Amino acid sequence: MSVSSAYSDLEDVFRRHAAIGEAVGVLHWDMSVMMPRKGSEARAEQLSVLQVAAHDLMTNSATADGLDAAEAAKEGLDPWQTANLREMRRQWRHATAVPADLVEARTRAAMTCEMLWRDARPAADFAMVADALETVLALSREAGAAKAEAMDLDLYDALLDEYEPGGRAAAIDPVFEDYAAFLPDFLDRVLAAQDARPAPMMPAGPFDIDAQESLCREMAARVGMDFEAGRLDRSRHPFSSGYAGDSRITTRYDEADFMTALMAVLHETGHAMYEANLPSDWRHQPVGESRGMALHESQSLIVEMQAGRSLAFMQFVAPQLQAAFGADGPEWQADNLYRLCIRAAPDYIRVDADEVTYPAHVILRYRLERAMLSGDLAVADLPGAWNDGLESLLGIRPPDDRLGCLQDIHWYDGAWGYFPTYTLGAMAAAQFFQAAVAADPDIPAALAAGDFQPLLKWLKANVHEKASRHTTAEVLEQATGRPLDPSAFKAHLERRYLHARDAA
Amino acid sequence: MSVSSAYSDLEDVFRRHAAIGEAVGVLHWDMSVMMPRKGSEARAEQLSVLQVAAHDLMTNSATADGLDAAEAAKEGLDPWQTANLREMRRQWRHATAVPADLVEARTRAAMTCEMLWRDARPAADFAMVADALETVLALSREAGAAKAEAMDLDLYDALLDEYEPGGRAAAIDPVFEDYAAFLPDFLDRVLAAQDARPAPMMPAGPFDIDAQESLCREMAARVGMDFEAGRLDRSRHPFSSGYAGDSRITTRYDEADFMTALMAVLHETGHAMYEANLPSDWRHQPVGESRGMALHESQSLIVEMQAGRSLAFMQFVAPQLQAAFGADGPEWQADNLYRLCIRAAPDYIRVDADEVTYPAHVILRYRLERAMLSGDLAVADLPGAWNDGLESLLGIRPPDDRLGCLQDIHWYDGAWGYFPTYTLGAMAAAQFFQAAVAADPDIPAALAAGDFQPLLKWLKANVHEKASRHTTAEVLEQATGRPLDPSAFKAHLERRYLHARDAA
Repeated sequence: MSVSSAYSDLEDVFRRHAAIGEAVGVLHWDMSVMMPRKGSEARAEQLSVLQVAAHDLMTNSATADGLDAAEAAKEGLDPWQTANLREMRRQWRHATAVPADLVEARTRAAMTCEMLWRDARPAADFAMVADALETVLALSREAGAAKAEAMDLDLYDALLDEYEPGGRAAAIDPVFEDYAAFLPDFLDRVLAAQDARPAPMMPAGPFDIDAQESLCREMAARVGMDFEAGRLDRSRHPFSSGYAGDSRITTRYDEADFMTALMAVLHETGHAMYEANLPSDWRHQPVGESRGMALHESQSLIVEMQAGRSLAFMQFVAPQLQAAFGADGPEWQADNLYRLCIRAAPDYIRVDADEVTYPAHVILRYRLERAMLSGDLAVADLPGAWNDGLESLLGIRPPDDRLGCLQDIHWYDGAWGYFPTYTLGAMAAAQFFQAAVAADPDIPAALAAGDFQPLLKWLKANVHEKASRHTTAEVLEQATGRPLDPSAFKAHLERRYLHARDAA
Repeated sequence: MSVSSAYSDLEDVFRRHAAIGEAVGVLHWDMSVMMPRKGSEARAEQLSVLQVAAHDLMTNSATADGLDAAEAAKEGLDPWQTANLREMRRQWRHATAVPADLVEARTRAAMTCEMLWRDARPAADFAMVADALETVLALSREAGAAKAEAMDLDLYDALLDEYEPGGRAAAIDPVFEDYAAFLPDFLDRVLAAQDARPAPMMPAGPFDIDAQESLCREMAARVGMDFEAGRLDRSRHPFSSGYAGDSRITTRYDEADFMTALMAVLHETGHAMYEANLPSDWRHQPVGESRGMALHESQSLIVEMQAGRSLAFMQFVAPQLQAAFGADGPEWQADNLYRLCIRAAPDYIRVDADEVTYPAHVILRYRLERAMLSGDLAVADLPGAWNDGLESLLGIRPPDDRLGCLQDIHWYDGAWGYFPTYTLGAMAAAQFFQAAVAADPDIPAALAAGDFQPLLKWLKANVHEKASRHTTAEVLEQATGRPLDPSAFKAHLERRYLHARDAA
């Protein structure tokens, strides 16, 4: 049986939709890396027009009719096409569930709120942004309600589903509650074990920025970055964007600290490899896209946290660092650098947190955003609830809102339902790494030789090339034999933070 | 009387059309300056999808109906709105005259031909690309015929009109024939006068690239470039792109020669200032766009040729150059640098030509493209006709097609009807400069102090801010009191190349 013309026509619509999405991605990259300051107004206009054009492709009645017709005639489709049709429907549901004027009001409210947040954060003045955040919350709740109705989901799940397809609070709750219960005692043990080890010595800078950049380029290439198909640039916050043939990662450099930039580059290269290894046969189709933010974060964290911060990789990179900075001494030994990488300590700031305490930051935000969306927590009460929550999870209380509820852009920028994906990704990364090493026991030795390829080969076959053919849960099951299971992550933390050693 | 809703709706359509055009421009800039090699396939797809989206806005039946309705109710429009409606109709005619499949076939043929040309040029092998050029010519002729019919123009004028609105061969012919008749004797006199002057001494490099770049940035800023609203980058060929708030110019640097990069930067900054000074009230509307390629080229050439290569500016820049390169000696004196700038000599290559012989290159191409489009000259006969033509105009015969008909990308890339705008621009530049100095006699003294602002102020008021409110001919008349008149250009050449002095 041949493929229906309805299905073929849909492939063309979604191809155009994806190409506009790529163009939007390049314009966003340019905005963060290249665009002069005064170009922002024109850029906002361009992005808005392109987003409307992409949205029009989805909300067009021909697309709705095409989906119905293709679903009625899907016997002729092969498994990838069937999955593609499922993903088309999913994207269409997300795009059409929310009325256009609500989409626009939400986008505008988020832009306004983000601008205020940019001033409120350094001023540690939550009152400056509270009303705007109230508006963003109300519109996000309204959009979530519309999606919830269209997709027959709870409101929170409907928002989460945008970032993590199939992600459900009912599955996250026990995982996070388990970790919240595990953490207090475990953290005490980690800090005690850390105190019992020699304190890590901090290599003294300044570390030449060009030398840092050239080392970062070399390490990105070792992970798999092809600089004829990608770039490494500088930006205020590290990020990854692009697609196969044109992967673009960024980092920032600090003369006093080489490790932050290096680890950011490993992290962003992990993201970039996922995109670069997606199946080329399904380029520009929904089934050919990466499968949600939890898997995406798992791919960055497996490269940064599981591989990059391992003792094995430190053995490789220590002499490289010494050569790059013309330095030597005991602080440059692999075991000292490893101890630097695995320092743990409660901190106010999520992005500075170690692997052990990071989930506490995410659990806090997950609890608070659910309470705000359900109406149980008023925006005005957020600062207090934040500080109480952090204190109960980590035993520290932020002295002001800059170090508290103003630290992250997400809510102010309209991203509700995003936070849990960080910790789901960290847990999936540990589980993947365990399975990868079981399948190929040479992986740690390869990392000790600076060779990421055995690990990346396993990731490509078991994650990247599957794109969105399967659900996140299916990808995990196929690759590791079980659904998401925090035990691999906890075992990893115990080995590394109690015993200062790694998986193999 | 209020503005009709038909007109207001059209403003929204054209706003979206222009915003997509800006996005396409940024993607083209990125392709030339930033994109890794392997990103080209994805980029071609993105550009093609965006161009289709922009084209759909034009060919939409609602746009046609809106134009009819707005034209029927145009009494309520003010003069700018009236001109805007006229320009909307003009853009719409160009966009809708050619059937979509012919547009696509032409684009594809041009891409194929350009790829072949990239190999054929260095190999000096016209046969490699002749068939592809034949296809491009046939499709360009077909598109020109469709436009000619829709706009009631001759075929050549219909193609030219895309680059130079209102440009007509009947007006160009006498101007070009006059110059072709003027040139042989004049060039002999120029070469004799040049021989009678001290030969210019070439400063010896290498000239540090970073020092060149920083000098170029400073000179661009002196012309008016605001680096919070623009960028200067490196690319294979210098170009200018962008818009108010985000002007992007590029150049290339040669360690053996600082003058080429500097003059290219002045040239591209002239283009950029035109775009940057367009009236902000008419951003994203057809009437707010720059008025054709002849005026655009006049704005780059007035900055580069009239102002930048003047003795006055050399007096300012000579000590800057000495400081930048830590050099001194007689070769760094202003009068020597000026003599370097105004060397004239017949050459095979258009882009290397001096002001005197440059028009001969353009006239050659203009004659040949008209003959090919009319069918009087077969593609197979182009190399011989080219060489004969150059010999008759400049007395030199290219030894191979790399230095002959393969040197320029234009025809291979589908740009037929573009070439005359270079020389129309050079002539308009001389005419504008004459009028500007007459209106503000302090301009040359300001240039001698490195101050371009008096000149730019005149250009802004007399050219830039008029955008597309008037025709090219009207802009020239209003600014200089007469239509395009090559006598200012010839007078400029006589002063500079016979007597080594400038307008004032």
